[in-house]
Amino acid sequence: MADEAVQAEYIAVKALENGVTIIGLTRGRDTKFHHTEKLDKGEVMIAQFTEHTSAIKIRGRAEVYTKFGVIATSSG
Amino acid sequence: MADEAVQAEYIAVKALENGVTIIGLTRGRDTKFHHTEKLDKGEVMIAQFTEHTSAIKIRGRAEVYTKFGVIATSSG
Amino acid sequence: MADEAVQAEYIAVKALENGVTIIGLTRGRDTKFHHTEKLDKGEVMIAQFTEHTSAIKIRGRAEVYTKFGVIATSSG
Amino acid sequence: MADEAVQAEYIAVKALENGVTIIGLTRGRDTKFHHTEKLDKGEVMIAQFTEHTSAIKIRGRAEVYTKFGVIATSSG
Amino acid sequence: MADEAVQAEYIAVKALENGVTIIGLTRGRDTKFHHTEKLDKGEVMIAQFTEHTSAIKIRGRAEVYTKFGVIATSSG
Amino acid sequence: MADEAVQAEYIAVKALENGVTIIGLTRGRDTKFHHTEKLDKGEVMIAQFTEHTSAIKIRGRAEVYTKFGVIATSSG
Amino acid sequence: MADEAVQAEYIAVKALENGVTIIGLTRGRDTKFHHTEKLDKGEVMIAQFTEHTSAIKIRGRAEVYTKFGVIATSSG
Amino acid sequence: MADEAVQAEYIAVKALENGVTIIGLTRGRDTKFHHTEKLDKGEVMIAQFTEHTSAIKIRGRAEVYTKFGVIATSSG
Amino acid sequence: MADEAVQAEYIAVKALENGVTIIGLTRGRDTKFHHTEKLDKGEVMIAQFTEHTSAIKIRGRAEVYTKFGVIATSSG
Amino acid sequence: MADEAVQAEYIAVKALENGVTIIGLTRGRDTKFHHTEKLDKGEVMIAQFTEHTSAIKIRGRAEVYTKFGVIATSSG
Amino acid sequence: MADEAVQAEYIAVKALENGVTIIGLTRGRDTKFHHTEKLDKGEVMIAQFTEHTSAIKIRGRAEVYTKFGVIATSSG
Amino acid sequence: MADEAVQAEYIAVKALENGVTIIGLTRGRDTKFHHTEKLDKGEVMIAQFTEHTSAIKIRGRAEVYTKFGVIATSSG
Repeated sequence: MADEAVQAEYIAVKALENGVTIIGLTRGRDTKFHHTEKLDKGEVMIAQFTEHTSAIKIRGRAEVYTKFGVIATSSG
Repeated sequence: MADEAVQAEYIAVKALENGVTIIGLTRGRDTKFHHTEKLDKGEVMIAQFTEHTSAIKIRGRAEVYTKFGVIATSSG
Repeated sequence: MADEAVQAEYIAVKALENGVTIIGLTRGRDTKFHHTEKLDKGEVMIAQFTEHTSAIKIRGRAEVYTKFGVIATSSG
Repeated sequence: MADEAVQAEYIAVKALENGVTIIGLTRGRDTKFHHTEKLDKGEVMIAQFTEHTSAIKIRGRAEVYTKFGVIATSSG
Repeated sequence: MADEAVQAEYIAVKALENGVTIIGLTRGRDTKFHHTEKLDKGEVMIAQFTEHTSAIKIRGRAEVYTKFGVIATSSG
Repeated sequence: MADEAVQAEYIAVKALENGVTIIGLTRGRDTKFHHTEKLDKGEVMIAQFTEHTSAIKIRGRAEVYTKFGVIATSSG
Repeated sequence: MADEAVQAEYIAVKALENGVTIIGLTRGRDTKFHHTEKLDKGEVMIAQFTEHTSAIKIRGRAEVYTKFGVIATSSG
Repeated sequence: MADEAVQAEYIAVKALENGVTIIGLTRGRDTKFHHTEKLDKGEVMIAQFTEHTSAIKIRGRAEVYTKFGVIATSSG
Repeated sequence: MADEAVQAEYIAVKALENGVTIIGLTRGRDTKFHHTEKLDKGEVMIAQFTEHTSAIKIRGRAEVYTKFGVIATSSG
Repeated sequence: MADEAVQAEYIAVKALENGVTIIGLTRGRDTKFHHTEKLDKGEVMIAQFTEHTSAIKIRGRAEVYTKFGVIATSSG
Repeated sequence: MADEAVQAEYIAVKALENGVTIIGLTRGRDTKFHHTEKLDKGEVMIAQFTEHTSAIKIRGRAEVYTKFGVIATSSG
Repeated sequence: MADEAVQAEYIAVKALENGVTIIGLTRGRDTKFHHTEKLDKGEVMIAQFTEHTSAIKIRGRAEVYTKFGVIATSSG
């Protein structure tokens, strides 16, 4: 494992409804979904960028905590 | 062990009800639950990201202390 | 993978309409589209620069969160 | 010993009642209790993250001093 | 690829009219155009300096976001 | 000796009564008492974390100076 | 290529008239013109110092954005 | 000598009475007194942590200058 | 070329009259003029310290932008 | 010589009477006087910690400039 | 050449009369004059410390720009 | 030469009377005078710590510019 990996930046997501989806997209030549995590209302997930994840997509009503502040997603 | 690991960022969780669950998700190609810790009301847990944990999920009513401030989870 | 990759800067994009397109352009001698991600209204995507992506193009009505602040794109 | 270990972050715990328990959880693939320290009322303990401890659990009425401020635990 | 490349600085360009041109100039002994990207009105592009690009020229009405602030280009 | 050891963080303890006890706990797989220092009223001790000490316990009425401020212990 | 090159400082130039000239002077024992770039009114150029360019000369009416602020050139 | 040693932190002690004692405690597995320095009233001593000293004990009425501020010791 | 060279500090000079002279003095055992650049009124030059230039002399009426602020030269 | 030595911290002492004594104590297993410098009234001495000096003792009426501020010594 | 040399600190001198003298003193065991530069009234010189220069002496009426602010010399 | 030497800290001395003496004391096991520089009234000298100089003594009426501010010496 790359030594710096444990010090990568993290974001936080708080689900405001059931079924919020956090999708990890693969780093590297191909950009594919490699993991999908479901959150129920009120749950919080904290996730780092990793060797395998260089992009994260959030679906469903949630608050996304980033270095730019809190970004509110909305459901479709 | 990676030398930088002891200096990884940490978060803190304070349980506001019994049975708050802190779930460590595995770093690496597969993202799976590898550890689940239960907190009773009033307990505090402080946890670093590690070589094995790159994401943390919190269920149940709790305060999650992060670099973005305190995020309140709520029970389902 | 380059060790520093996990610590690359990230941007965030919030779609304000369906069909917002986030296009990754290849790093290196040739600058080509290598990935296109579609966002529906209300979705948020967070993306790092990577070994393969050194430029990102955003089409459709969206908010782009960067170190310069939030830049509002508009649809054509 | 990893050279950086002596420079790891520390937290402080002040017991507000007898029998406050500070539990060190193991770093690594398995997350297990590896040490339990009891504090009597009024005692203070200062503890670093180490090669062996990547999470700390506090039970009983205490003040936990962290980089996020002071978190008050309460007894069950 | 140079490890530091993923951490190079980036600029952002928002097109205020169709046909805004972002031209990458080659690093190295010769300074030549090596890539031209067209933006339509309302599109945003975010671009890093790379091993191949050490200068960027913007033509057409646009906002250029740099560490010096926003520079407004105008069309000829 | 690890080169960084001389630059480890330190804390300070001022005894407010005779017999204040400062206990160094061992770093490593086992967490044991390895040193106990007694302070009389009015004495000050300044101590670094070291290769051998990753936790410090203070008993008796004292002021503990840490990066979180001054924490007052009290006697039992 | 020197790894640090992608992280060299950059300046920006906005042309206020046609024919603004940006001249790169060679680094090294001899200081010679090695590249001349013409900007038309309203165009912006962003340029890094490189292995080949250690000095930049600007002729014609323009705004030069530097770490010292904006310096206005004037035409002869 | 470890290269970093010359850059270790220092503290200062000003004696407010004759016979103030500054005791250096050994770094390493055993924590023993290895040096005792006496200060007369009005004298100032400035001391670094070293390869051999990881803890310092001050006895007698003095002002101890630390990164936490000035701590006043008092005589027994 | 020394890798750090592209990141050396730069100064800027704005000529307030024709014939302002910027003279680079050689680094090394001998300190000699190695390059002279003439600026006409209104021109701006931005120059780094380099492997070959460790001192710069400015003659003629100009504004010299440095980390100490703007220093106005005057003609003889 | 250790490379970092030239960048060690320094203190300054201003003598307020004749015969102020600045004593360098040896770094290392033994802590002994290795140099004594006398200052007359009004003289200033600026001294770094070195490979050989890890503690400095000041006797006589003087102002000692440290990172904690100015500490006034007094004569016996 | 030492790589860091291009990043050494610089000072600036503005001559307020003809014949201001800037004298570079040699680094190393012997401290000798190795270069003398004359400035006429109104000229500015910017000079780095180098491998050969560790001290600089300024004679004649001038303003010396340093990290401590501007120091006015006066003629004898 | 140690690479860091060119980046060592510097102080500045402004003589307020003729014959101000700046004395460099040797670094190393022995602390001896190795260079004496005389300043006449109004002259300024800027000097770095070096491989050979770890302490500097100033005699005669002068202003000594240090990181602690300006310290005024006075003549005997």
